[in-house]
Amino acid sequence: MVIVMAADATPDDIDSIVDLVGAAGGEAFVSRGVSRTIIGLVGDVDQLGTLNLRGKGGVADVVRISVPYKLVSRENHPDRSTVTVRGVPIGPDTMTLIAGPCAVETPDQTLQAALMAKAAGSALLRGGAYKPRTSPYAFQGLGEAGLKILADVREETGLPIVTEVVDAHDVELVASYADMLQVGTRNMQNFALLQAVGSSGRPVLLKRGMNATIEEWLMAAEYIAQRGNLDIVLCERGIRTFETATRNTLDISAVPVAQRLSHLPVIVDPSHSGGKRELVLPLSRAAIAVGADGVIVDVHPHPETALCDGPQALVDGDVRELATLARQLPPLVGRTLTPVPEAAPVR
Amino acid sequence: MVIVMAADATPDDIDSIVDLVGAAGGEAFVSRGVSRTIIGLVGDVDQLGTLNLRGKGGVADVVRISVPYKLVSRENHPDRSTVTVRGVPIGPDTMTLIAGPCAVETPDQTLQAALMAKAAGSALLRGGAYKPRTSPYAFQGLGEAGLKILADVREETGLPIVTEVVDAHDVELVASYADMLQVGTRNMQNFALLQAVGSSGRPVLLKRGMNATIEEWLMAAEYIAQRGNLDIVLCERGIRTFETATRNTLDISAVPVAQRLSHLPVIVDPSHSGGKRELVLPLSRAAIAVGADGVIVDVHPHPETALCDGPQALVDGDVRELATLARQLPPLVGRTLTPVPEAAPVR
Amino acid sequence: MVIVMAADATPDDIDSIVDLVGAAGGEAFVSRGVSRTIIGLVGDVDQLGTLNLRGKGGVADVVRISVPYKLVSRENHPDRSTVTVRGVPIGPDTMTLIAGPCAVETPDQTLQAALMAKAAGSALLRGGAYKPRTSPYAFQGLGEAGLKILADVREETGLPIVTEVVDAHDVELVASYADMLQVGTRNMQNFALLQAVGSSGRPVLLKRGMNATIEEWLMAAEYIAQRGNLDIVLCERGIRTFETATRNTLDISAVPVAQRLSHLPVIVDPSHSGGKRELVLPLSRAAIAVGADGVIVDVHPHPETALCDGPQALVDGDVRELATLARQLPPLVGRTLTPVPEAAPVR
Amino acid sequence: MVIVMAADATPDDIDSIVDLVGAAGGEAFVSRGVSRTIIGLVGDVDQLGTLNLRGKGGVADVVRISVPYKLVSRENHPDRSTVTVRGVPIGPDTMTLIAGPCAVETPDQTLQAALMAKAAGSALLRGGAYKPRTSPYAFQGLGEAGLKILADVREETGLPIVTEVVDAHDVELVASYADMLQVGTRNMQNFALLQAVGSSGRPVLLKRGMNATIEEWLMAAEYIAQRGNLDIVLCERGIRTFETATRNTLDISAVPVAQRLSHLPVIVDPSHSGGKRELVLPLSRAAIAVGADGVIVDVHPHPETALCDGPQALVDGDVRELATLARQLPPLVGRTLTPVPEAAPVR
Repeated sequence: MVIVMAADATPDDIDSIVDLVGAAGGEAFVSRGVSRTIIGLVGDVDQLGTLNLRGKGGVADVVRISVPYKLVSRENHPDRSTVTVRGVPIGPDTMTLIAGPCAVETPDQTLQAALMAKAAGSALLRGGAYKPRTSPYAFQGLGEAGLKILADVREETGLPIVTEVVDAHDVELVASYADMLQVGTRNMQNFALLQAVGSSGRPVLLKRGMNATIEEWLMAAEYIAQRGNLDIVLCERGIRTFETATRNTLDISAVPVAQRLSHLPVIVDPSHSGGKRELVLPLSRAAIAVGADGVIVDVHPHPETALCDGPQALVDGDVRELATLARQLPPLVGRTLTPVPEAAPVR
Repeated sequence: MVIVMAADATPDDIDSIVDLVGAAGGEAFVSRGVSRTIIGLVGDVDQLGTLNLRGKGGVADVVRISVPYKLVSRENHPDRSTVTVRGVPIGPDTMTLIAGPCAVETPDQTLQAALMAKAAGSALLRGGAYKPRTSPYAFQGLGEAGLKILADVREETGLPIVTEVVDAHDVELVASYADMLQVGTRNMQNFALLQAVGSSGRPVLLKRGMNATIEEWLMAAEYIAQRGNLDIVLCERGIRTFETATRNTLDISAVPVAQRLSHLPVIVDPSHSGGKRELVLPLSRAAIAVGADGVIVDVHPHPETALCDGPQALVDGDVRELATLARQLPPLVGRTLTPVPEAAPVR
Repeated sequence: MVIVMAADATPDDIDSIVDLVGAAGGEAFVSRGVSRTIIGLVGDVDQLGTLNLRGKGGVADVVRISVPYKLVSRENHPDRSTVTVRGVPIGPDTMTLIAGPCAVETPDQTLQAALMAKAAGSALLRGGAYKPRTSPYAFQGLGEAGLKILADVREETGLPIVTEVVDAHDVELVASYADMLQVGTRNMQNFALLQAVGSSGRPVLLKRGMNATIEEWLMAAEYIAQRGNLDIVLCERGIRTFETATRNTLDISAVPVAQRLSHLPVIVDPSHSGGKRELVLPLSRAAIAVGADGVIVDVHPHPETALCDGPQALVDGDVRELATLARQLPPLVGRTLTPVPEAAPVR
Repeated sequence: MVIVMAADATPDDIDSIVDLVGAAGGEAFVSRGVSRTIIGLVGDVDQLGTLNLRGKGGVADVVRISVPYKLVSRENHPDRSTVTVRGVPIGPDTMTLIAGPCAVETPDQTLQAALMAKAAGSALLRGGAYKPRTSPYAFQGLGEAGLKILADVREETGLPIVTEVVDAHDVELVASYADMLQVGTRNMQNFALLQAVGSSGRPVLLKRGMNATIEEWLMAAEYIAQRGNLDIVLCERGIRTFETATRNTLDISAVPVAQRLSHLPVIVDPSHSGGKRELVLPLSRAAIAVGADGVIVDVHPHPETALCDGPQALVDGDVRELATLARQLPPLVGRTLTPVPEAAPVR
């Protein structure tokens, strides 16, 4: 931490900071300039953080130097991690495709979508049974009935399932069906939910809040990690900006930036960021090429009747193109496509 | 709703839309232009919304004309509402000041802050017992012990209390102590929480999400209203922008805009938007002058030792200045300051 | 400046920074922590800035401590300045109203608008003869013919004129008619133009770029000041954010922030930020209450036929209300309304 | 265009719109709903645009349906264009690499950078002689001396040159040396400059304003096109958002979106958007994979002493990696790398 003193700080102000830091077990190094003095602090940041230095006399600014997250930081864990979801790896050596319908609607629709996902090369099945919707009048998901459909489709196809949980008190129920729990963009700072999935014993897919900085995203992951769960996959899904031509602005740079700051895998959701079918394949290519550890996309057998986000779901022709690029692109960035699991695993 | 057909839409595409709308009980008016055709739809918007028109052949765009919220809209409820919190009104005739500490820390700190609040002219006491914090290592609030302190201070000072609830499953407990429930900026789209406070029987203070459009904010209010609770006060608290000189950018225009779209009262939080003590009084003046129905500010007897947001809390000298402006400014916008309640009400 | 060394920086990396800084006439203070070392630099910031320290081995980050502007900074000029435009002051003691049509269209329209401006209590007349427009197909202004109309109206009404200049090579011509030169939001970083108005001998109204941070705005002012012209008035006019309910988001906090960082006067344009007539008066009240040194608004005798921004221009009824608030509000913030000049001054 | 009438619009209001539109040579189709009436307009949009319909009685909103640009729109020009710069194509069949130093500093530095550019597979040389800088105290470029250096290096290496022009009145001079004129992000709405490069007879590289929507970017291109110059290449270079981990946020989706709306080629600048060397190669890969028509990067023989943007310049090792990816990736998206021109062309 660095304390920047105000131009009119007195020698007493400076001494008082030095004393305070010393009493808290830290060390203060004073650099006196012509117009300003700065004080470098060395010691336990959490301890120093409780001193409320910003409120002391003569202090103009406090500049934090170290990152505020620990367990998910790459500083103390230089090797990048691989998260395994019922045998399917997501990590630095592979590129894992995840596909499925935005929302589970019927057994047939879900099965058809899962078969499309497999055809595309997907190793995991996504699908929502609980849907957080901006409008209270929109379809909110089938709830537990949807989870049962997902479990049945897993039996039939062999694809492990990733599904969203929206309330801390549903975590146990959802975890009893799902192989991976998704925390959605609107819940990235729902701290009760983060703590609950941290105690769930299941890997977690943590979507970036549409207004969250990368640092806040990693702090949200830290909430999960703090409960003993380091099986976290970060998912960039677009941030909110002034541009209205796309639903959100895919922050493609967030992939290499987050991979450098954290050891956790980072994947990309091109369907929800762009919000338009014709953008999904180009953005998937960009995601794989930038070095993402995976891509998660919406597919739907009949998007024109989808209850949720139909306009962005891939259809059959797209799926064939996706299969090709998911096979050809990863080797150019030193990866292989994670293989599709065999059908009918026994739990 | 207006359907904009693509330049290459066929007559069949157009007929198919007209038929679909007719079958759903609506009417379609076709305007054929030289380069494009547009179709105006008349009928039940919710019904038409399920038709998934955006996914149909030849459709380039669907433009919604009416607003998606109903219960909180001013269209069907032209008169602006007054919400009453244990006898204290928040509405178009008054300007209600709400003050208190960011977090409840000790009985003495809370009482001192409440006395400062009263001295400033505050009619309600704010204070957090549950604190959603970006870092899992930061102070998270005293929980129920904090609620008890608030209740004791209410006994002593007569100020009804406004306090935050962060989890749907705490709503009943918090509502047993609090006079008004606050939903914080990070939870504005925590739909389970919105529904729970909607069923709580208590008035709700709904902070705007820092990345939420005004329309999304009103949709969040609609979630609460849909559960039968129309005692909702909207609170503008700054949005996230590229500017880093302030913690968030206070969107002062949101006050008149939201008041025009909705009948609900709208207040302003200048403490959390600016994040700096020296901005709180200027922004409070701006809020009252623009026509806000209230202002909510942080005060603290000893901000230099505050466990949360000390740098933005007002201190004694500021409180006197706040008292003056809260008395002088409202009459210029046709309002009076809501009076401070008498001490020691009996429940 | 503070240099933050990377976790894996070597002692040689550190020594090399210390030597480099010493050779450039500065001093380096090294603070060695457990996980990182930081180096505080003292000396001529411009000199140190040329060292390209961010590119050196072992350097993780360079944190600037002092502000990059000098002439417009309040650090070296604690008293706030008053800029005088042909006898009309804009500064900390007064609140100066500036009104007029967005664009000069005809002699009659301009005169009528000027009379409305006077009726509102305006001490200066705004009006554009050169209009920068997003579309090449939109009305671009009358050019010199418009300047002549403005000069005639000044003769008739006594109001000094503020008008925009959009090209460095027009500065001399525009300055021969205008009393104050306006640099528009899209030109805030048109450095050739900034330098030209800096040499023009006329006061300058510098609008904030719609995407500019406050620091960049002050750097733009520094460009003008560097040419010897310190008669600069800053104008906040809304920034670009994700919110689409208003044309731009008026950053009301920018007024106290800029006034604290710079000695220059700061005014507000509520017409262009909101983009809607019904927002102009509420935002004008907010601007005066927050402590702005002035307000600049669009008025038009017949907004329904205006060639530019008609929907935001005030009409007769609004003007009477504006006159009232411009008289009543400033005394509450320790100011008086700058009086309207007498008619028909002779140059 | 669609006119949305207010809920309280009268039949007379509606008739008056219909009459007005008819008098202007257009047709109005009225759709009367239960709560609102909408009117579809058909006719010459520019003509209807002058009617100021938004200001008429009873009008709640005017929704534009067609795009406001014409010459650069893909609607009237479905095939994507190729722009040729002294024999080097930029267009849909190839992927053109452009590299060079941010600023021209010395003959030797420029030549070394050009040789690095060639080694990377670059077909064009970028380099700035006029540098728009946020601070008036920063290096502003060598001016004409820099142009001469660029011309000499072109003689020696055979690489055509792309260089920025910052003032309309320098266009003729810069065009006498350069093969392609660059308009920088801060000047995207410097309309005088746009018109000047539109008349210059040289191809133009138009960077997106860091706060510009894609529509505004295309409108800026329309300004150039309107002067008869359709040799325009669009360059996405990052937009301003709340995220501070990168200098700007590369809007990778803008590439397919702009290519769908306009026939003009679209390239990407990964150096200026990320602002950090380690992001340049990942973002270059993303740009090629998403389908960009080219990539423009900073290279520097000695970035640690660069006068401008050293921290983002690629160095020798990076250049070898860039050469590999520029050869391997384009074929996966149906393109070939534009070959490096032979040395020493004679003009």
